[in-house]
Amino acid sequence: MTDRPDLENWTCPLPLRDQTAIVMGHGGGGRLSGELVRHLFLPSFGGAELSSVLEQLGDAAVLDAGGNRLAFTTDSYVVRPRFFPGGNVGDLAVNGTVNDLAVSGAEPLALSVGLILEEGMPLDELGVITETMGRAARAAGVSIVTGDTKVVDAGHGDGVYINTAGIGVVRPGLELGPGQVRPGDRILVSGPVAAHGIAVMSVRDGLEFGSDIVTDSQPLNGVVGRLLDSGAQVSMMRDPTRGGVAATLNEIAASADVGIQIVESAVPVPDDVRAACAFLGLDPLLVANEGRVVVFVRADDADLALDVLRQENPAAAIIGEVVEEHPGVVVAKTGIGGTRVVDLPLAEQLPRIC
Amino acid sequence: MTDRPDLENWTCPLPLRDQTAIVMGHGGGGRLSGELVRHLFLPSFGGAELSSVLEQLGDAAVLDAGGNRLAFTTDSYVVRPRFFPGGNVGDLAVNGTVNDLAVSGAEPLALSVGLILEEGMPLDELGVITETMGRAARAAGVSIVTGDTKVVDAGHGDGVYINTAGIGVVRPGLELGPGQVRPGDRILVSGPVAAHGIAVMSVRDGLEFGSDIVTDSQPLNGVVGRLLDSGAQVSMMRDPTRGGVAATLNEIAASADVGIQIVESAVPVPDDVRAACAFLGLDPLLVANEGRVVVFVRADDADLALDVLRQENPAAAIIGEVVEEHPGVVVAKTGIGGTRVVDLPLAEQLPRIC
Repeated sequence: MTDRPDLENWTCPLPLRDQTAIVMGHGGGGRLSGELVRHLFLPSFGGAELSSVLEQLGDAAVLDAGGNRLAFTTDSYVVRPRFFPGGNVGDLAVNGTVNDLAVSGAEPLALSVGLILEEGMPLDELGVITETMGRAARAAGVSIVTGDTKVVDAGHGDGVYINTAGIGVVRPGLELGPGQVRPGDRILVSGPVAAHGIAVMSVRDGLEFGSDIVTDSQPLNGVVGRLLDSGAQVSMMRDPTRGGVAATLNEIAASADVGIQIVESAVPVPDDVRAACAFLGLDPLLVANEGRVVVFVRADDADLALDVLRQENPAAAIIGEVVEEHPGVVVAKTGIGGTRVVDLPLAEQLPRIC
Repeated sequence: MTDRPDLENWTCPLPLRDQTAIVMGHGGGGRLSGELVRHLFLPSFGGAELSSVLEQLGDAAVLDAGGNRLAFTTDSYVVRPRFFPGGNVGDLAVNGTVNDLAVSGAEPLALSVGLILEEGMPLDELGVITETMGRAARAAGVSIVTGDTKVVDAGHGDGVYINTAGIGVVRPGLELGPGQVRPGDRILVSGPVAAHGIAVMSVRDGLEFGSDIVTDSQPLNGVVGRLLDSGAQVSMMRDPTRGGVAATLNEIAASADVGIQIVESAVPVPDDVRAACAFLGLDPLLVANEGRVVVFVRADDADLALDVLRQENPAAAIIGEVVEEHPGVVVAKTGIGGTRVVDLPLAEQLPRIC
């Protein structure tokens, strides 16, 4: 035996584009990521009866467990550097999974934590990260109930990688998802976008630039709960992390088979974030967020939903609507009266941002 | 801002022994692993009301979710090399989490998969691994329902690290755990031990040796289900992975505050595995397994339990019993009529074995 596989029993529909090996873009949340999931993971993992849940490709899977609907989700966090303005990989790992549950309409119940530590990782830094995780969990009102730690040789990790999985209980009667989205639905964001990605880039080796921009990382289960309590008819929600608002809207346009039209000037981007994006050559719509939610809501309830979101963050805004035209395509009205297609990037603008 | 933490708000009870950085032994399932959990993670993660579940330190946390008891568990798999006789990291990652649920008395319901891929990982190898995961999941009757993929730069990973988390539904009325263990309970293993660790070592770079030994990696939910169906009064179960049977028995002796006495010659170790252990200077009791379960059962039901286990594997055996003497300590009767203490190693004999 060697460590090379016997390929005889392998039935996957490869190749994926022209790649024969993993490239950074496979982790970026763009088209390459999507191809990996659809052409490699779904055929591998999905037995005929298993694949329907996985194929929803939502932020969390929703399962039936003895009469309850449970949401179940996982994410790994490999952000580089580990510490950045306003947070570190620890609170990111807690908030990210809490938010995936929240936008699925679930109240987070419990988290697991899987740590992959690199030999030589300073214990004091690890302690700060785990303390931050504990604080973030308490702030979100969720328990860390189980965990695992592995250590890999120096040169085979990056200090610490964190996986969090989470389970939550979905509100009875609530149905969210691409199947609920209708032309006419209004699209809202819960606050200014693009700060998280810019905050991380501002301290990345070789790219440091002076900035007061801090991550937007925060738990969303509170504001999402109040939004659902308000009675506003929400059709779906998603937190625009990797690939930013653009990737989120493109995924929803494709999976709901609808067109999406946004007004570029309506998307809240703070001046300093916009300036940093210009400096770095980035489109703010493509930069990751970790504490924002994109909400699709029936037109009649858009103002009600906006009121709820604005009580949390005054910059919350209605940024567009769902249209019957150009299904699968996201279009932005630009400042000069024209329109442009908001495309999903092939890979990503910013690797290892979460 | 830099990527160094501000330590001012940090309240953890460090230092852990004399280490100021992570060493391989922190991931080995021995004393160093335990210290990291007890002295760093529990104080960090556990709010007053949160910590009771975490402090059970079982294979899975058991939670109340709308009237059901759910088991929830996570593990990361960093085994090196990725392919070894009889399996690869993919089926290991599925079986390991299925087994953590099974030994907690839960029927596995769903798995999540978090992949951390290294730039340059060959797609064909990845495909073999994910295909193997899918097959292992179907063999165990469990669904992979949600996932996440991250990519890290070359030189910051090792091809693929896999995290699996799992949820299961605990049998109504079933109570398992250290609190159920009583003096007099008999201790069984479900088959021969130590094959997994030896199979991996036999193909590790720099250590290769000719061997027909294959991993024992397999799902345990079937045999565990039949054992519970039999009506045998099981007090607790655990799968002896990292640290082997010795670590499992030591943990249970400590958490149940009982003594454990085993008969060394009763522990089934195949001749070729025993020879390889001798060659490598390893104690078979300390070598990891991935498809075995250690069962504690009331003395009156020991033969019934043995019958059930032997239908699955004829090498299943009663290896010892729980005693009132020497609480917290595991003692083995040796072949020459003496006894020895079976201690928990400080670190581990075999790093990165799962």
